[in-house]
Amino acid sequence: MIMSRSEAPPVKDTAATGDLLDRLLAGLPGDAVLTDLDVTASYANDMASFCPAGAPAVVVLPRTVEQVQHVMRTATALRVPVVPQGARTGLSGAANASDGCVVLSLTKMDRILEINPVDRIAVVEPGVINAALSRAVGEHGLCYPPDPSSWEMCTIGGNIGTASGGLCCVKYGVTAEYVLGLDVVLADGRLMSTGRRTAKGVAGYDMTRLFVGSEGSLGIVVRATLALKPQPPQQLVLAAEFASGAAACDAVCRIMEGGHVPSLLELMDRTTVRAVNDLAHMGLPESTEALLLAAFDTPDPAADLAAVGALCEAAGATQVVPADDAAESELLLQARRLSLTALEAVKGVTMIDDVCVPRSKLGEMLEGTERIAEKYQLTIGIVAHAGDGNTHPTVCFDAADPDESRRARESFDEIMALGLELGGTITGEHGVGFLKKEWLAREIGPVGIEMQRGIKQVFDPLGILNPGKLF
Amino acid sequence: MIMSRSEAPPVKDTAATGDLLDRLLAGLPGDAVLTDLDVTASYANDMASFCPAGAPAVVVLPRTVEQVQHVMRTATALRVPVVPQGARTGLSGAANASDGCVVLSLTKMDRILEINPVDRIAVVEPGVINAALSRAVGEHGLCYPPDPSSWEMCTIGGNIGTASGGLCCVKYGVTAEYVLGLDVVLADGRLMSTGRRTAKGVAGYDMTRLFVGSEGSLGIVVRATLALKPQPPQQLVLAAEFASGAAACDAVCRIMEGGHVPSLLELMDRTTVRAVNDLAHMGLPESTEALLLAAFDTPDPAADLAAVGALCEAAGATQVVPADDAAESELLLQARRLSLTALEAVKGVTMIDDVCVPRSKLGEMLEGTERIAEKYQLTIGIVAHAGDGNTHPTVCFDAADPDESRRARESFDEIMALGLELGGTITGEHGVGFLKKEWLAREIGPVGIEMQRGIKQVFDPLGILNPGKLF
Repeated sequence: MIMSRSEAPPVKDTAATGDLLDRLLAGLPGDAVLTDLDVTASYANDMASFCPAGAPAVVVLPRTVEQVQHVMRTATALRVPVVPQGARTGLSGAANASDGCVVLSLTKMDRILEINPVDRIAVVEPGVINAALSRAVGEHGLCYPPDPSSWEMCTIGGNIGTASGGLCCVKYGVTAEYVLGLDVVLADGRLMSTGRRTAKGVAGYDMTRLFVGSEGSLGIVVRATLALKPQPPQQLVLAAEFASGAAACDAVCRIMEGGHVPSLLELMDRTTVRAVNDLAHMGLPESTEALLLAAFDTPDPAADLAAVGALCEAAGATQVVPADDAAESELLLQARRLSLTALEAVKGVTMIDDVCVPRSKLGEMLEGTERIAEKYQLTIGIVAHAGDGNTHPTVCFDAADPDESRRARESFDEIMALGLELGGTITGEHGVGFLKKEWLAREIGPVGIEMQRGIKQVFDPLGILNPGKLF
Repeated sequence: MIMSRSEAPPVKDTAATGDLLDRLLAGLPGDAVLTDLDVTASYANDMASFCPAGAPAVVVLPRTVEQVQHVMRTATALRVPVVPQGARTGLSGAANASDGCVVLSLTKMDRILEINPVDRIAVVEPGVINAALSRAVGEHGLCYPPDPSSWEMCTIGGNIGTASGGLCCVKYGVTAEYVLGLDVVLADGRLMSTGRRTAKGVAGYDMTRLFVGSEGSLGIVVRATLALKPQPPQQLVLAAEFASGAAACDAVCRIMEGGHVPSLLELMDRTTVRAVNDLAHMGLPESTEALLLAAFDTPDPAADLAAVGALCEAAGATQVVPADDAAESELLLQARRLSLTALEAVKGVTMIDDVCVPRSKLGEMLEGTERIAEKYQLTIGIVAHAGDGNTHPTVCFDAADPDESRRARESFDEIMALGLELGGTITGEHGVGFLKKEWLAREIGPVGIEMQRGIKQVFDPLGILNPGKLF
């Protein structure tokens, strides 16, 4: 990924910045306020390519709700923009700094406050790492399903801000479905609670859901009540090879139409399979055009895999290999989880798209993406949460080559246009951020944008919360 | 339930009303505009008690999106309030008319436009009856889980407006989780599309979810894209008798803590059991203090019922009776489904509360409700979606007795106060409407109310959409 940065000079310790720092330090400990230019610069970007990032005036690392309130009151008083950040693993530039902003990193608020196995909830601070929560609830026989690829690094607050997904979604849904209630610090520093800690609740407009995916543009999430599920049985994985992407997509349709509920249904194209082999020597079958991975965490996964294997064969699979055990299954998943890193290694830089289409259109999406790769003479690997119709066409390019970079950007946009044409969305799980804000307007139309701007105005009348993102 | 009506005289055909009718008739067929006073009066109420209802100026029954747009443009031009309605089976007064309003009944827009088994979605108009959709998707091997008690009568649009739940929620969640995208006519007649028809999508703020449960206060839902699930196996039901509500609630906690995922986990107290026997001679065990019904729609429901039966016995169940087959299971469910009707028959009128508490607090909720019944010398039957902690304490009273009516209203409020005290919500699935609007403010606080009012203002600057509800 490109760690691009705008050409603006680093912020100097002007009178205005001095005032900002003095005011911040009146309510934050010294070690929670970072001003060293090398340090603050390291907070400028998330992992998106082609997104400008400014130089923060300061990075703050509050540890309490009161400290976050102090930061927001200060920012409101001085009309300074605030960019909230988690682990900066996002892929849309939503966490990129703007010049002179306060970067509000929530990573130090990382306590798991409660795990309740009867109510099946956890209450956490926003900086808790996704994997840390998964492990902690696992000790109680529980499971927090959302599993973005960056789960070992990314934070729950970041997951909420970007409404992230993962491999589990085909059965277990996305982050949004696990957020029951939030404590939010508003732009002016006031604290608001949304939602509930009960299984159900419909008191007023669903403010919780409004914050999920709002990319820090409406307020700062400082606490979340999350729904948990019982830990399912260990899943068993099947790999099926196909001689064409179309055949693999046909298999996906047959599986879903057949009423099966896989815990994972992933697709890797040949480019991706080869990239993974090159990176990790995993011995995946390079002769394949498309590799489909299906998993079940049901009471009898072998039976489910047999049924799904038969459907793959009916769709023309050239080989169907069910894993015999958990170890083999884990190896296949490793290959899938390495895909994006492997594609990044192909040319040094990638742009990862995130177009979700109705799954019945998945075949057309794959075919169209291949046409686009050909048109722009680019390597575009495709990994997809196939069961959800959520594709990640990943453009591999050499950032030092201006023409290839231009073609990469253009192909990226053409892939989104194709997704919309097929009745899909420009983002299934990565969000809009800076990267896709022009495309958001195209997807939701002028009336939608007008209403969304109206909502933004209600929560952030001064426009200090993560400006320049989303719209 | 009381069909109360405010004392305001029926609207006369004044010049203003004449203008309204003329304008409406310019874009609606004559049979879609009802003005006969007896007819319009019959559209004044939903099924809530203690909620005032005014006399509509007119009832309109549009059949197309364009006709709804015409109605809203007319209402905006003349500043006339509009009260959207489905089947008026709601229990919070959210669909009650206000004096001189246009009642906008969506019941004639009742087409199922699409059922797609690969994408697992249905596209419907708002007036489709819940049960009609369930049956239609069932023919494709699919299932639309949300099943409010009124499912044979209530409409999908009403379900969306009130964010309704049902028996299935403990496993399958509430209406909100099945609404992927909406077409909405705004207050000024413009059309806005929200959401998606894909499995995932995070483009911008979640406007779809904002409309779910908004009780017609933000816009008129004219089309919905709904998620479907594969039809699960036929569920098998177990009944367990307990000598106390506390023991039954202990069983609920053990079942949920044990990681079980019942498709239904319902509780009926002795008052309810007796009422059902009185109404339908079902031979339920009247010696019991609390009857728990658990169901599983898993591949091996008998095994799951055996495990859950053992947990019930460990919690002190006096008898555990698993149904042998689907017919026996259906009989037990019939008893549960008849509960509210049966309680209504006790004294002629009921107030059905809808307090949801963390399920670990269910025992305290039951105990507290019994204390309240004693304090006010009232019969309060309790049915509960126990697995969700969602109780429906149902106050039975004689509406002709002013003192008993007063006590009924006071006990109803005290039950909500108890729910909030236990960390719960004033409404798990019935909504706020008119009935609970003072309580909404108490639950979400002044900052929450301010933000919700702000959102309302964005969508409905003239305040013509279902005024007087929610806030």
